[in-house]
Amino acid sequence: MKRQNIYILLFTLLTCFGVTAQQLSSPDGDVVMEFSLNSDGAPVYQIAFKNKAAVKSSKLGFTLKETENMDSGFSVLDTQTSTFDETWKPVWGEESEIKNHYNELLVRLKQESTERLMNIRFRAFNEGVGFRYEFPEQPNLGHFIIEDEKTQFAMTGDHTAFWIPGDYDTQEYDYTESRLSEIRGLMDKSITENLSQKSFSSTGVQTSLMMKTDEGLYINIHEAALIDFSVLHLELDDETMVFNAWLTPDVQGTKPYLIAPSNTPWRTVMISDDARDILASRMTYNLNEPCALEDTSWIKPVKYVGVWWEMITGKSSWSYTNDFKAVKLDATDYSKATPNGTHAANNKRVKELIDFAALHGFDGVLVEGWNVGWEDWYGHSKDYVFDFVTPYPDFDVDEIQAYAKSKGVEMIMHHETSSSVRNYERHLDEAYQFMKDHGYNAVKSGYVGDILPRGENHYSQWMINHYQYAIEKAAEYEIMVNAHEAVRPTGIARTYPNLIGNESARGTEYQAFGGSKPNHVTVLPFTRLIGGPMDYTPGIFEMDISKLNPNNNSHVNSTIANQLALYVTMYSPLQMAADLPENYNKFLDAFQFIKDVAVDWDKSMYLEAEPGNYITIARKAKGTNNWFVGNVNGKVSRESNISLDFLDKGKKYIATIYADAKDADYKTNPQEYTIKKMKVTNTSKLSLKSVEGGGYAISIVEE
Amino acid sequence: MKRQNIYILLFTLLTCFGVTAQQLSSPDGDVVMEFSLNSDGAPVYQIAFKNKAAVKSSKLGFTLKETENMDSGFSVLDTQTSTFDETWKPVWGEESEIKNHYNELLVRLKQESTERLMNIRFRAFNEGVGFRYEFPEQPNLGHFIIEDEKTQFAMTGDHTAFWIPGDYDTQEYDYTESRLSEIRGLMDKSITENLSQKSFSSTGVQTSLMMKTDEGLYINIHEAALIDFSVLHLELDDETMVFNAWLTPDVQGTKPYLIAPSNTPWRTVMISDDARDILASRMTYNLNEPCALEDTSWIKPVKYVGVWWEMITGKSSWSYTNDFKAVKLDATDYSKATPNGTHAANNKRVKELIDFAALHGFDGVLVEGWNVGWEDWYGHSKDYVFDFVTPYPDFDVDEIQAYAKSKGVEMIMHHETSSSVRNYERHLDEAYQFMKDHGYNAVKSGYVGDILPRGENHYSQWMINHYQYAIEKAAEYEIMVNAHEAVRPTGIARTYPNLIGNESARGTEYQAFGGSKPNHVTVLPFTRLIGGPMDYTPGIFEMDISKLNPNNNSHVNSTIANQLALYVTMYSPLQMAADLPENYNKFLDAFQFIKDVAVDWDKSMYLEAEPGNYITIARKAKGTNNWFVGNVNGKVSRESNISLDFLDKGKKYIATIYADAKDADYKTNPQEYTIKKMKVTNTSKLSLKSVEGGGYAISIVEE
Repeated sequence: MKRQNIYILLFTLLTCFGVTAQQLSSPDGDVVMEFSLNSDGAPVYQIAFKNKAAVKSSKLGFTLKETENMDSGFSVLDTQTSTFDETWKPVWGEESEIKNHYNELLVRLKQESTERLMNIRFRAFNEGVGFRYEFPEQPNLGHFIIEDEKTQFAMTGDHTAFWIPGDYDTQEYDYTESRLSEIRGLMDKSITENLSQKSFSSTGVQTSLMMKTDEGLYINIHEAALIDFSVLHLELDDETMVFNAWLTPDVQGTKPYLIAPSNTPWRTVMISDDARDILASRMTYNLNEPCALEDTSWIKPVKYVGVWWEMITGKSSWSYTNDFKAVKLDATDYSKATPNGTHAANNKRVKELIDFAALHGFDGVLVEGWNVGWEDWYGHSKDYVFDFVTPYPDFDVDEIQAYAKSKGVEMIMHHETSSSVRNYERHLDEAYQFMKDHGYNAVKSGYVGDILPRGENHYSQWMINHYQYAIEKAAEYEIMVNAHEAVRPTGIARTYPNLIGNESARGTEYQAFGGSKPNHVTVLPFTRLIGGPMDYTPGIFEMDISKLNPNNNSHVNSTIANQLALYVTMYSPLQMAADLPENYNKFLDAFQFIKDVAVDWDKSMYLEAEPGNYITIARKAKGTNNWFVGNVNGKVSRESNISLDFLDKGKKYIATIYADAKDADYKTNPQEYTIKKMKVTNTSKLSLKSVEGGGYAISIVEE
Repeated sequence: MKRQNIYILLFTLLTCFGVTAQQLSSPDGDVVMEFSLNSDGAPVYQIAFKNKAAVKSSKLGFTLKETENMDSGFSVLDTQTSTFDETWKPVWGEESEIKNHYNELLVRLKQESTERLMNIRFRAFNEGVGFRYEFPEQPNLGHFIIEDEKTQFAMTGDHTAFWIPGDYDTQEYDYTESRLSEIRGLMDKSITENLSQKSFSSTGVQTSLMMKTDEGLYINIHEAALIDFSVLHLELDDETMVFNAWLTPDVQGTKPYLIAPSNTPWRTVMISDDARDILASRMTYNLNEPCALEDTSWIKPVKYVGVWWEMITGKSSWSYTNDFKAVKLDATDYSKATPNGTHAANNKRVKELIDFAALHGFDGVLVEGWNVGWEDWYGHSKDYVFDFVTPYPDFDVDEIQAYAKSKGVEMIMHHETSSSVRNYERHLDEAYQFMKDHGYNAVKSGYVGDILPRGENHYSQWMINHYQYAIEKAAEYEIMVNAHEAVRPTGIARTYPNLIGNESARGTEYQAFGGSKPNHVTVLPFTRLIGGPMDYTPGIFEMDISKLNPNNNSHVNSTIANQLALYVTMYSPLQMAADLPENYNKFLDAFQFIKDVAVDWDKSMYLEAEPGNYITIARKAKGTNNWFVGNVNGKVSRESNISLDFLDKGKKYIATIYADAKDADYKTNPQEYTIKKMKVTNTSKLSLKSVEGGGYAISIVEE
């Protein structure tokens, strides 16, 4: 009650300065954004949710290099309001139709001293606010360089946050759950090792950032439509609990170079008192431009297996030989090299994978380590590291392609760039053409290690432009892209739906590198997945990695039931069954769920959600009447109670429930699960127990 | 005499240390290089010319990053000597056959503490020595990063040098003639402004560096075959007169990244007691690999005019409109722009140039400013600056091409990259294909301004690799390249003869930017031209630039006779007649020499030469019996006495002599010349006076 009074007072004070505040409400009226200029002519905004402050008065603007800043001295030329309401059909997604409904406020500002123009466009959705800066064409602003973005997100208290360290090169960190005030103290411990990383502040964190207030408000800060700009990070002032925008600099420490007319990406603040609304939000996609591709018929969701986990665990190798101290692609002769005997991407092994895929109905087979160069692929700032077209002697592209085709399976290409970006761009046309010539329609690309050009960062404007270039060029070739170690997505897949996946977070591979936190997957949908799907590569059944590689004692912190649930909770049009066929063959009854589960959906229902604790989602498979339910559970055992009221009234279904066994334990007994079949209807209610790091998966098929 | 004694003592002392010295002599015995290891196991060399020390004992080796240095602790594994003598035919050149005759010493070294191998390969030619470092494939050396090249060039005294400031981005400086000891004091004054420049030391100078000793020895230091390495500069220790190699670093300050097996470029020291030998030397080409192209029939020398000088002088503009504050290629609409009325690359003007070229027998017409983007092309670190395929509204590519074809003239393409190198590489295939589709066979490329990727230098390994990439890709398209502001050549045109020219020095354009020194062209053949031809763009007849543009008071520091001579003295297979047709039409009798002069040669005779003072060269036009003679004169008026004994015995010729008039003066009366026709034979002797900044040109045709 007290807080509400302060809030009202604040609104009053603002108007006292004689600067007219302008309000913008969400369609349902729950979200109210107020824009005004302060006494310095600095743009400020604040956001309330259901009459409670969610974002306190926060400044907007930029400091610029070599010219006057654009953070104060503004007057309002005019404002325009409008309403937008449409429904659009994504090429793939969590639902077949997406509602894009918002109210908009466009504020046209003029900086009196410079006669420069800057607009701020706000859009209020039911689940939050997006805003961006726009620099119209004008006589007094052409080229300009951002020194710092001064956008603030002023929090109302010492919220609980799910955060990873701010970094210019990687998002592959475990999430830390802490009070905002605890970030500084926990930062060092949170920065775990990576092949390329650069942190910038002991209170710097990445977006999307998920928070929860003591009053039960869920707040998520991210960005949408990151095009020709650098990645937004947040630096917390932990005295005032104000987040300040922190853009990723280039090699010289400078931030985006812009030319008017241009727009920044959208800054987004999602707010709800129900965590499920954060998962259900399509704000990030809606703030992106509509699909830029005329024909999207060639874009298809993919369920796949691959030659990958055996290398990640150290059981096999990407490399073909141990002969070479270093590799020069145009000089090294592989034909005389001694095979190391551990090279997994060989004809025999790949055919086994193709057979397995065909037998179990998978769409594709990914093969990593098929092309020459892996003996010497990272850590040396190597320029010409791969050519993307030359296979190892034991991998016959044509033979494999013909075999896969005969089995009705598609091969998935792999392009590790080693972050040698010029080299990749030089080979891109040839590499994509090679794919088309050999029947590959999708590529997993990788950006391991420090960027070349040296000193550039994975998340600088230079690199953002590269990732975009690769996506758009791939679209010209009708190629789907799944980019790893690239920038985390910001909804761009709406515009370029051939971007069918990204890694850009701590994926399943870390379960073979020491393990991730057992509740990791209850956080990712609230953070990394806000901007687009993740190629999380779930489906690990053998949690004791030493069974694959005696020298690797890592443990997969998850139960098998949890692994199954991920196919529902971690939405992606690209889903891998990442474990080895040998391991699936030991648990074919559980494997059945992976075979059955869909990868594209008509509808999604967010049944239960609490970041860091649990997520339960039901999804209706596209073009069918089948439903799949997934529950992942976090830090403590929990009873999940769900209603199946999303099923069609009056219809009868058979549910197959894959759940943690009573004595399942993610650490000591992860492979214990129960499978139960039962008849259900839309009046059915289920109560299922999930252990720590556990969960359940249900397939529901019309009888 | 005293000096000679010291020299002998030095040799003796070296052997005293018990390290066997190994000598290598030139085929004629005049040049003697001696290699040894000093007491630290550091490789050292020295060079004598006709028994006089030319290079004193100088160290060899490298310091490396993150690992042991390779500058000492070596022992000699073995040495190999060999002799090579061949004659090869260049695709174009100063002569139709080039003799490549040298003795070679290969020293195989082992660093005992690291068990690493390094070879040094020396080649002794009659006019000097080249050596390079070779890193063979070996177990203990794969990737390595050079911290500093420790190669020394120890001079024997305080020589006179013709130098330009060491710089990572430009060679566009006037040469300073001074004692070595005076470099430091003259450095600041020598660094004139450029759009991109970065100097590194007050005693840092560029190669090729021309010197003259008090004893009359001419010494030139340069490099050959600069591939996958960074540019060699020299830093003088002006206490000891030792030059230390100084490699161009990358954005992070680091120097080349290498992978064994690999070789460095050759370091070259030319030595003679006759300056003409320096001009006649083909050492730099000979140290490059033979031609890499199977078919070179499409590579043809070119004499051309162009739409260029009128923009350089400020009479016209590259840009089409003054409407835009900035240009975004994919957003700016030129169709509605107001023409500025000064855009030179318009259909009408270009057709005039085509007519002029056809009338006077020129092969080609260069047009700069034909493509959109010139309103906003430099100074803003702009990424997407040109697309290389979109013409301005007033330039019709097809119409112009058809018109040129009908007149028997080739159009020459222009690609200004603005040093946005990623953008150029992204467009390179399309740009080259556009050329082939529209009948262009040659391109002038430009690298004005600071490099993108930001912080990179024009002469770093990264950029060396780019220039090479552009040349090799052009060869695939059968395109000839004339790259401006790129790295100065190092003889690579032997291997890729489609590199028909470079600017990479202070060209004629500076005569419109304030003027160059009147003796500039008597230095360039001893420095910049050592590595390959220069697109110097001679032929300016109107020396008072204010006649073209009232706002430009620059003066061309040259007489017309001097301008004519440049077509002979500044060898290039690509020669422009740079002035405007309007100016040539006023002096058609002098213009006749430019029309007549050849651009490819069977033979060249270096009649007189003294750096900074005068150069007189006679060349026999390829496949004819016609000779052309050029004399450029430096700082004082001078009588040039030459014999025509190079003409065929017994044959009669008619010589047309274009000479400075008596009262000619490069500053006050530059347009006064005389033209005299006379009969000559191989017994004729001529005595001709050239004024300061003057010269003469002679065409000699069989009667």
